[in-house]
Amino acid sequence: MKRTKVVDALACTDFGKDINVKGWVRSHRSSKAVDFIALNDGSTIKNIQVVLNPSDFDEELLKGITTGACINVTGTLVESQGAGQASEVQCRELEVYGLCPGDYPMQKKGQSFEYMRKYAHLRLRTNTFGAVFRIRHNMAIAVHQYFHDHGFYYFHTPLITASDAEGAGEMFQVTTLDLTRTGRDGAPVPYERDFFGKKTSLTVSGQLEGELGATSLGAIYTFGPTFRAENSNTPRHLAEFWMIEPEVAFMDKDELMDLEEDFIKYCVRWALDNCKDDLEFLDKMIDKTLLQTLESVVKEDFVRLTYGEGIRILEQVVKEGHKFEFPVTGWGMDLSSEHERFLVEEYFKRPVIMTDYPSEIKAFYMKKNADGKTMQGTDVLFPRIGEIIGGSVREESHDKLVDEIKARGMEPESYGWYLDTRKYGSCPHAGFGLGFERLMLFVTGMQNIRDVIPFPRTPKNAEY
Amino acid sequence: MKRTKVVDALACTDFGKDINVKGWVRSHRSSKAVDFIALNDGSTIKNIQVVLNPSDFDEELLKGITTGACINVTGTLVESQGAGQASEVQCRELEVYGLCPGDYPMQKKGQSFEYMRKYAHLRLRTNTFGAVFRIRHNMAIAVHQYFHDHGFYYFHTPLITASDAEGAGEMFQVTTLDLTRTGRDGAPVPYERDFFGKKTSLTVSGQLEGELGATSLGAIYTFGPTFRAENSNTPRHLAEFWMIEPEVAFMDKDELMDLEEDFIKYCVRWALDNCKDDLEFLDKMIDKTLLQTLESVVKEDFVRLTYGEGIRILEQVVKEGHKFEFPVTGWGMDLSSEHERFLVEEYFKRPVIMTDYPSEIKAFYMKKNADGKTMQGTDVLFPRIGEIIGGSVREESHDKLVDEIKARGMEPESYGWYLDTRKYGSCPHAGFGLGFERLMLFVTGMQNIRDVIPFPRTPKNAEY
Repeated sequence: MKRTKVVDALACTDFGKDINVKGWVRSHRSSKAVDFIALNDGSTIKNIQVVLNPSDFDEELLKGITTGACINVTGTLVESQGAGQASEVQCRELEVYGLCPGDYPMQKKGQSFEYMRKYAHLRLRTNTFGAVFRIRHNMAIAVHQYFHDHGFYYFHTPLITASDAEGAGEMFQVTTLDLTRTGRDGAPVPYERDFFGKKTSLTVSGQLEGELGATSLGAIYTFGPTFRAENSNTPRHLAEFWMIEPEVAFMDKDELMDLEEDFIKYCVRWALDNCKDDLEFLDKMIDKTLLQTLESVVKEDFVRLTYGEGIRILEQVVKEGHKFEFPVTGWGMDLSSEHERFLVEEYFKRPVIMTDYPSEIKAFYMKKNADGKTMQGTDVLFPRIGEIIGGSVREESHDKLVDEIKARGMEPESYGWYLDTRKYGSCPHAGFGLGFERLMLFVTGMQNIRDVIPFPRTPKNAEY
Repeated sequence: MKRTKVVDALACTDFGKDINVKGWVRSHRSSKAVDFIALNDGSTIKNIQVVLNPSDFDEELLKGITTGACINVTGTLVESQGAGQASEVQCRELEVYGLCPGDYPMQKKGQSFEYMRKYAHLRLRTNTFGAVFRIRHNMAIAVHQYFHDHGFYYFHTPLITASDAEGAGEMFQVTTLDLTRTGRDGAPVPYERDFFGKKTSLTVSGQLEGELGATSLGAIYTFGPTFRAENSNTPRHLAEFWMIEPEVAFMDKDELMDLEEDFIKYCVRWALDNCKDDLEFLDKMIDKTLLQTLESVVKEDFVRLTYGEGIRILEQVVKEGHKFEFPVTGWGMDLSSEHERFLVEEYFKRPVIMTDYPSEIKAFYMKKNADGKTMQGTDVLFPRIGEIIGGSVREESHDKLVDEIKARGMEPESYGWYLDTRKYGSCPHAGFGLGFERLMLFVTGMQNIRDVIPFPRTPKNAEY
């Protein structure tokens, strides 16, 4: 008999029909007259209730129906007597696919997230992580749907690279050399024998390659893994994370801000429209302001604010007595997450797109304004997160770009292919980067970035 | 004035209206009375024709309008007099965004693919590679759309891993150690000082982690980069490529074959429905049987054939005089691509799903049949490609899996988390892997796998 998914069985009102459901036991309550089994198959956070008369089944069989066991149930779909569920299954045939011994690490409810991180392969079977990873799927689908509908091409930039991009962070080296034989007290590494014949690393950003795509295909986006070898053991850092980086030819600063705002609202609205049950669970269990925060982001226009205006506001509130942990030192300072969140959560009570940062605190490829000291950046600051998007118009002048590269002590020779886009038919263009896990933190209300990716990679941790 | 994409301008019949188009010059023909500029912006393989009266424009400006230059054109949309195009732009204002010097490597038409591979950052601006990468986008979107519509969750498995998966291939090592100081004539590598505190590598397959997802969320798919450090300089091998790996709880062999056939037909149909112009170009320029091959795959039922039957057919045709390069040695042999393509292209003239291979020539996790010598594999063999999908039912018995791991000289201790799925609530399940670039070769008709990924990684090649 063909299996019905739990999500479909719960929505079905064709009472009296035969039905087959399969899944994992969330709980099993027994009594003399009746047994109740809460069954989940991952298709929804909700369980379907399986009801059976214990005298119809083998006692040993029923003893095996413990939390975590996997079973196959055939019976009749009936209207549920209980509150909050439409249908349940009156069980006629029962098969155990897999028992679950008593040392099952996910047996108890209410384990800490820290405990569950040690069992990343089994935490997927809990309510919270089921919800998080169904939402993660939906956010990824929203990303693809949005860009596809808007004429962007998904563009696969390389993971292994001989370029160090923008010097955006510490890199992992990739090698096939025998590490017991590579070096001797500082002697040169024999890269000529390495797989690629030179030193290679894992990418820290696909942006520069993405620009190659945008300046030929018109509008592209990347969505793939990105790496930082930073020894940061914080709830905000991962060594391996997923980035989304659209790049668009012929786009100016205003259009870029429109794109950023429209895109992120689309993703949040998608979650509200498609992940209702999971969000309601997280709103109840993780963050009681979650749904309200998501709904307000979708509704409100984002504030558009220059960096200079932002600094003036921070200086003003400090004068009025507001205390920040990190000092507000005036124009030229790099904002901390604390400052960003103050502007968003307390001052404007809305997301902010901050523009026109000082050039020195931003990357070399960002287009300078006519004043020579600010650049056409467009970062999006979000409640609870701080910077969720970093964007800018890109410098399209070959000569200005070379000057900037030199001024920063970098070597133009290392950027030959990148500079070629400015040498041959250069075009104005712009783009942004969004850390997918930051979006996930925002949309789920989870506090630790290790809890929104299935198998987090952090210092000293690469299990699975 | 708001830019109109070339794809939209060509479809517009609102003649007489003002229009702005931007893009790269594909060709510029001048005469005394009229200039014709073929303009492309990556949104379609088709160019829009820009027509201008040279006496209305500065001579120096017009001299800069060479192949590869980037320009901004405002004018009137008019009905085209030429064949094969509906509309063109009568130019009123013209701005050059970026000149293109005479050493532009993509200036000449008809360069070899080998030549163009040296300019992977500029080949994107050619007709062929524009077509290929628009199709690549569409195939990726088809993958996501199919699985989303069928209730699968996109599941991000890790790229950096301390596990060696199935021993599926040579691995790249990932490290932050200073290679000039790691080893001295075979002394142990100080992994305790490495970023993850142990030896780590780039994944060769996300399947084992994917099974963790399937046995909790029900049905998942991966779609991400995968790595093989094999020193193979062939038109079929990449060191970095993209894999799609669905895994489904409660799926049996027949359902798996249905999924494989339905999925791949969906992707090919998507290409036919959404990439018409690009496919027609490739059919004309690259492979004159392309459209016909794609259409036949969508129409025909795939043959379902056991390995044993396949071997008997091959033995029979050898007896009848057919010559193969690789010998047909009978039951137990590993089929070569030549044998697979013979069955598909000459014998059945249809795709084949081959099942029930000898266990010894397949991976440890595949479920054995009751005969003890064959397994429930379901590989899809395709014209021009050979094996395009490798699938199987997975062994769900903990004890059988441990026995198989030991029998192959592997260590069960290294697979603790994988075996946990069989220890705690094990369920029958199945899945397959599809190399995305193999699908791309099939759908585009291209011959070399380096020409269907933007920045190919191969031995001694990691530019960009």
